[in-house]
Amino acid sequence: MRYKVTIAYDGTDFAGFQMQPNERTVEGVLTKIVNKIAKNPGKRIQIFGSGRTDAGVHALGQVVHFDMNTQMNEDNMLHALNSMMPLDMSVKKVEIVSEDFHARFTTHGKRYMYRLSLGEFVDPFKRRYTGHWKFPIDIKLIKAAIKDLEGTHDFSSFVAAGSTVKSNVRTIYEASVRFDDATQEIVFEFYGNGFLYNMVRIMVAVLIEIGSKRRPVDDIPRLFQVLDRNEARGTAPASGLYLKKVYY
Amino acid sequence: MRYKVTIAYDGTDFAGFQMQPNERTVEGVLTKIVNKIAKNPGKRIQIFGSGRTDAGVHALGQVVHFDMNTQMNEDNMLHALNSMMPLDMSVKKVEIVSEDFHARFTTHGKRYMYRLSLGEFVDPFKRRYTGHWKFPIDIKLIKAAIKDLEGTHDFSSFVAAGSTVKSNVRTIYEASVRFDDATQEIVFEFYGNGFLYNMVRIMVAVLIEIGSKRRPVDDIPRLFQVLDRNEARGTAPASGLYLKKVYY
Repeated sequence: MRYKVTIAYDGTDFAGFQMQPNERTVEGVLTKIVNKIAKNPGKRIQIFGSGRTDAGVHALGQVVHFDMNTQMNEDNMLHALNSMMPLDMSVKKVEIVSEDFHARFTTHGKRYMYRLSLGEFVDPFKRRYTGHWKFPIDIKLIKAAIKDLEGTHDFSSFVAAGSTVKSNVRTIYEASVRFDDATQEIVFEFYGNGFLYNMVRIMVAVLIEIGSKRRPVDDIPRLFQVLDRNEARGTAPASGLYLKKVYY
Repeated sequence: MRYKVTIAYDGTDFAGFQMQPNERTVEGVLTKIVNKIAKNPGKRIQIFGSGRTDAGVHALGQVVHFDMNTQMNEDNMLHALNSMMPLDMSVKKVEIVSEDFHARFTTHGKRYMYRLSLGEFVDPFKRRYTGHWKFPIDIKLIKAAIKDLEGTHDFSSFVAAGSTVKSNVRTIYEASVRFDDATQEIVFEFYGNGFLYNMVRIMVAVLIEIGSKRRPVDDIPRLFQVLDRNEARGTAPASGLYLKKVYY
């Protein structure tokens, strides 16, 4: 039986998604729980995620799948998993899927959100859950610039060193920004067919520089041309980034 | 010069307000920072808080005072303190006050808030910041019962063992409850002239039992009569409790 599982986690206390020896990771914690539920699976059950998230990055709707030789229905699996979850991770949804489904290889796209808190001092209740910017910032400039990110581009200026993918061409279907009155935060959203290593955090750093007049409002087309990550400079902190949804 | 300082903190990673050897406490962290700012204060500068908060309890507006032999104005002190604060604590306001002011002895009252999240599973982004209740709960029953807490009463049924105060008589000026649509939480507020050890958390536990029909809606007047803490039973978790404001 193949189970598709949608999970949320507070990434602060995880060393990212991917399993690593001697580190607390999302994949590591999930793998242990799933193998405990399966009792004697014969060979170790492996978890497949839609992709990695870095240390400190959160998820509202990360998706994983695994195969288990059991008759548990969706609701029973949901309760079994949640009864063993640590408090900073929870399962939102369990679906039984066909063997065609693969959490990583059958995705059509992903949606990320970035929360940026403002004000001179960091709010102690937001430090785990937002990036923070204490200088003046004009959201109108960001709104004007962010549309330049939409479309199909070579994002070589927006990928961190250490990426091992062959092509840096990706398509962003939708990039938006709004000011949230309730939280007094700037909220960015990016929906695309795939994202490179640190790509969202580098895009947000560029947009913050544009909003605070440290970079011209029309600089993004230039960054697409120069194909040089040094030109994009900063990387916004992991604490503000959320994997919101994975599309299949 | 006497400084009145209003601070906020995420209580999760503090062993409460009061200084204790080998524990990270709010008072301990503040005392270190203030003495660093004063450089050579001669004798160690002491912090006076409006009162303790327990391990895990948060503050949106805790108040402390201290005396420092310096000419720093309010704004400079605000920046000096915040530049040294850990990320889970911040200073909201600094006021220079007369020597009549005492953070503990001149208070007229305090306001506490309690956030209760609902739903079957704990939201990983709320576990540090709310209590959680997964069973059916009727806020109308709580609304009917909570007004019985207002007024002057002997709160002996609502004080944890270990309290050392002489009298358990306190006055609650206002007790209210509402459902917050944005967060989908039940939010309690209590404004009174003083609160006993664990008193808010015990009141909230009683109200949750009333709301979920584990206790009659008119049980609070009985609890005031029996003067027996065992009759009140539970204590709601610290994670949902906030010291919101101290009145002078």
